Amino acid sequence: MTDDHGLPFSPSAGLWRPLGLDDVTIEGGFWGERQALNAAAMIPHVEHWLERLGWTGNFDAAAEGRLPADRAGREFSDSEIYKLLEGMAWEVGRTGDADLDVRFAALAARVGAAQEPDGYLNTMFGRPGQRPRYSDLQWGHELYCYGHLIQAGVARARTRGLDDPFVQTVLRAADHVCAQFGPDGDQRVCGHPEVETALAELFRVTGEGRYLDQAQLFLDRRGHGVLGDIELGATYFQDDVPVRDTTVFAGHAVRALYLAAGAVDVAVETKDEELLGAVESATLRTLARRTYLTGGMGAHHEGESFGVDFELPPDRSYSETCAGIASVMLNQRLLLATGDARHADAVERTLYNVVATSPAADGHGFYYTNTLHQRVPGHVVAPDEVSPRAASSLRAPFFAVSCCPTNLTRTFATLAAYVASASDDAVQLHQYAPATVRARLETGAVELAVRTAYPVEGRVEVEVRTAPDGPWNLSLRVPSWAEGATLAVGDAAPEPVGSGYVTVPGPATGTVVTLDLPVAPRWTFPDPRIDAVRGQVAVERGPVVLALESVDLGADVASARVRTDATPREADGRVQVPVTVAGVADADWPYGQAPAATSDEERWVDLVDYHAWAERGPSTMRVWLPVG
Amino acid sequence: MTDDHGLPFSPSAGLWRPLGLDDVTIEGGFWGERQALNAAAMIPHVEHWLERLGWTGNFDAAAEGRLPADRAGREFSDSEIYKLLEGMAWEVGRTGDADLDVRFAALAARVGAAQEPDGYLNTMFGRPGQRPRYSDLQWGHELYCYGHLIQAGVARARTRGLDDPFVQTVLRAADHVCAQFGPDGDQRVCGHPEVETALAELFRVTGEGRYLDQAQLFLDRRGHGVLGDIELGATYFQDDVPVRDTTVFAGHAVRALYLAAGAVDVAVETKDEELLGAVESATLRTLARRTYLTGGMGAHHEGESFGVDFELPPDRSYSETCAGIASVMLNQRLLLATGDARHADAVERTLYNVVATSPAADGHGFYYTNTLHQRVPGHVVAPDEVSPRAASSLRAPFFAVSCCPTNLTRTFATLAAYVASASDDAVQLHQYAPATVRARLETGAVELAVRTAYPVEGRVEVEVRTAPDGPWNLSLRVPSWAEGATLAVGDAAPEPVGSGYVTVPGPATGTVVTLDLPVAPRWTFPDPRIDAVRGQVAVERGPVVLALESVDLGADVASARVRTDATPREADGRVQVPVTVAGVADADWPYGQAPAATSDEERWVDLVDYHAWAERGPSTMRVWLPVG
Repeated sequence: MTDDHGLPFSPSAGLWRPLGLDDVTIEGGFWGERQALNAAAMIPHVEHWLERLGWTGNFDAAAEGRLPADRAGREFSDSEIYKLLEGMAWEVGRTGDADLDVRFAALAARVGAAQEPDGYLNTMFGRPGQRPRYSDLQWGHELYCYGHLIQAGVARARTRGLDDPFVQTVLRAADHVCAQFGPDGDQRVCGHPEVETALAELFRVTGEGRYLDQAQLFLDRRGHGVLGDIELGATYFQDDVPVRDTTVFAGHAVRALYLAAGAVDVAVETKDEELLGAVESATLRTLARRTYLTGGMGAHHEGESFGVDFELPPDRSYSETCAGIASVMLNQRLLLATGDARHADAVERTLYNVVATSPAADGHGFYYTNTLHQRVPGHVVAPDEVSPRAASSLRAPFFAVSCCPTNLTRTFATLAAYVASASDDAVQLHQYAPATVRARLETGAVELAVRTAYPVEGRVEVEVRTAPDGPWNLSLRVPSWAEGATLAVGDAAPEPVGSGYVTVPGPATGTVVTLDLPVAPRWTFPDPRIDAVRGQVAVERGPVVLALESVDLGADVASARVRTDATPREADGRVQVPVTVAGVADADWPYGQAPAATSDEERWVDLVDYHAWAERGPSTMRVWLPVG
Repeated sequence: MTDDHGLPFSPSAGLWRPLGLDDVTIEGGFWGERQALNAAAMIPHVEHWLERLGWTGNFDAAAEGRLPADRAGREFSDSEIYKLLEGMAWEVGRTGDADLDVRFAALAARVGAAQEPDGYLNTMFGRPGQRPRYSDLQWGHELYCYGHLIQAGVARARTRGLDDPFVQTVLRAADHVCAQFGPDGDQRVCGHPEVETALAELFRVTGEGRYLDQAQLFLDRRGHGVLGDIELGATYFQDDVPVRDTTVFAGHAVRALYLAAGAVDVAVETKDEELLGAVESATLRTLARRTYLTGGMGAHHEGESFGVDFELPPDRSYSETCAGIASVMLNQRLLLATGDARHADAVERTLYNVVATSPAADGHGFYYTNTLHQRVPGHVVAPDEVSPRAASSLRAPFFAVSCCPTNLTRTFATLAAYVASASDDAVQLHQYAPATVRARLETGAVELAVRTAYPVEGRVEVEVRTAPDGPWNLSLRVPSWAEGATLAVGDAAPEPVGSGYVTVPGPATGTVVTLDLPVAPRWTFPDPRIDAVRGQVAVERGPVVLALESVDLGADVASARVRTDATPREADGRVQVPVTVAGVADADWPYGQAPAATSDEERWVDLVDYHAWAERGPSTMRVWLPVG
């Protein structure tokens, strides 16, 4: 199946087909720097921590019969090794890094050695002294772990082929899952969805329909209370309503979004328009009512879950990094299926403001949750400290539940897959980065060179290095925020373009298409139903959300006030807004007469890109600034 | 120790000494109705449910050797029977209800039959097939259960004397605790504080210093990480900082407040001014920065915990009923110790707006959490349905974790103890209800008749039925909200009085002292640091917080806007405010340009007392109303 080479996801139908790591090369810029950071720092950091905490060693212990005595970590720790393997596999595919390939193969071999003869592979269950296999589908995460194992296998298969020994391990595991949970088997599902999208992709890699059938079985079984009662309620793991009947996402955000991504995959492969429509409509409603300005999802720490409509407290935003990744996965699948630019807008927003926020500039620390309002300065986490998962503090090297760092490694390694897509006679550009884009259309080969300093600058130049012989179109996304955008083809005068996709018909080889997106900083107001940010305003610059940090204000950000009759300005490469610091008298009781606040003189204060906040030590921070 | 008869808490020192159930008789009115409801409906309802769920039966099963097979309920279910016993004991003491006394004795006998020869009493631990005694102090709640057992014993001892068989059971249990956890014993503490205040009170009942010493040991040991790590962090159960060094309450609200109440008890008995000062100052800071308008405490569902300063989201207010009760207990103790009216203000606010909010008008349903903003109409809970604890919905008959209904039974039965106190030569009135108050001063006996329709009306008449022969003073609390209050002694003209305690020197027998508290409805504005209610205003009437329900608005309360240049008015016994309903256009993305809202015509809409909300079926509700 060489057509799929280098493709993280490869739907066989849909409006557009993806372009993958073989087709798109990101060459520096915002995302190129992060891909380099991933290779140089994040992947080695994660390898180190997984060894150090013994989560990798669990596989050795399994192979050597030392379980459960030597078991380290939580039920789902195997999945972290799989996500790392997926990240390494794509990174090897992207760069051909021989040393990394050796490390991949060694790690994959340790995993493979723990596999049992019938394909079962999990270090937490099934041995004497451990709980029996599949005895805790609510919380045991066995199928979730298979999901990530399979995704790692897909990555290896699409970069090295099906004969790779690790891929063979993965196929045995997937076959075990089908045997165990097939039509006549165990009729339950996993508390944490993930295996659905993985099985659908494995079907695409192998052409084996049983994997797709199994994914569909899991989707159909879920939502009927099959998992039983838990204190958080069946909504927590999307077992209250079938995904087909979902109108808006609820419960644990990562679970809901992975499940929805799997549902899109199955819907596309089975031509199930009703299922696709349900997920699309739930996604759009969730974007309109349950999503933070950053694209972050999950408003409750309790249950790591969505809140109800417009319940989006900035100071308790959970906005888990993994939920951001899951939203990007889901929205990119919907984009390819439907061509609706709102999904590409969501991918952009979430990549810049959730996914990019998590890793520290040095790649050695991460946010698990991404708060929009830090009320108390965080504490510096020691380099050898394992943090609880949701600590609202400075970025931490690793977590007791550490899903996010490994998830970032695979996401950064596959960023090329979000840049562009193709159809029979067209190429679509979705995300802007300096890159080379190649596609083979029915009318011939295309090669594009994208030159841009986006998002620092709003100009994107697309040079058609090779145009096909036959008719073709080039489409570029104009983000919904980009009011006043213009497009120029060759030397023609720039023309205003509205948001969505603007299409340039048949540009010839050598043509340069120039998209100008106005990235001047702007005020952004919230829907008045979001009570938690009433009377407050945010600042955005292009796709980037900005934030005020106490380190720039010289005072706690609780006291900052802005006025929106002035416009944010740029000076020395920083965005600035006019701020007064309001003094508030302490009182015995914080409710009573309308407070008479005193303010100091207005001054222009630097903002920081939200994704780069907390890089200068403990600070208070807010994205939403009180007006007044 | 006959001095303590009828006293729920009886400090041996402090500025003022309490008056208890023998001294104060509430005769109707707001609190009298609730005492009657407690006797007629709530206590029988709780008895029924504890039997039905098998939590009472656990004691029979223990006595008959049927544990753990027949164990029902969570680790702490024993405590519910103890809190019910406490409520029943006080209620028998208050009214002499013979039937209730028979029920008390029968239930107490079943508890006593489960006690082991060494005094140990807990149905969850220690038998073959159960976990060993004290093997899970983090979560096992064994000492917490003893705390409530001891408080029930105190209630029986202070109404029937130490010879009562149940009191003897309790003393054996308390002696077991001292033997097990004494100076040379197990050096740990319980994950859930409660036993500290109970042991201090048992010392007061018995005069046995070892109980006080044990309470102090538990206080001193805590706060040094003695309980070990949990995912929520040591702050959750106040094991991060010794209570002596606490500056503001944090972590699980009920735990923090019970612990603080115990610390006040120990500080008062040991004359530890430093400890008393620390708790007082932490309480005042918590009132100023971490308390809802209702007096509710606990801003996070996760961990049922306090938020940081000014983090008080109304739609995620946890504001657990039990935290309200614990705050009332703590503040009354501080009031007696210090004479600071702010604590009586807190007691009043919390009683009217948290404690009174929990029970349904028929006494057969309860709120566990008390949200200030209901975004989605709740669902009707079936009469035989056990609810998860924090369901933000309509009041429910019982909960899987059901601490609040039983806690209310004991609180309502002891409301008389919050009305008044005495010192050598004075009586202080703190809470206003139609009541007879008797006190024996050094200068002679006092009897007062309080006549009032408070809080519906603001007039409180205190007739001195009997004045002592010698000099004395009568003090009345003027709540901090009561701007424009006046006091008239006899036929003299009313004089303006400020908030705090106003003292009438030596009123003679027959004198009527009239306090007029202006209860006209008023706007209440929040501290601007409470971001979650920025641009919003509440309405209060006297000590009562009001709320807007969709059933009165005829529309979702999300769309309501008020203007504060008008004043709330009263019509037909209802408070009304001028409201417009703003239409908000749905958008693909809820952030962007300043929204242009359209509004309908302004009209006057009824508010409801917050404590009585959700009595008319599913509704959306908000205490804080957007201005604009």
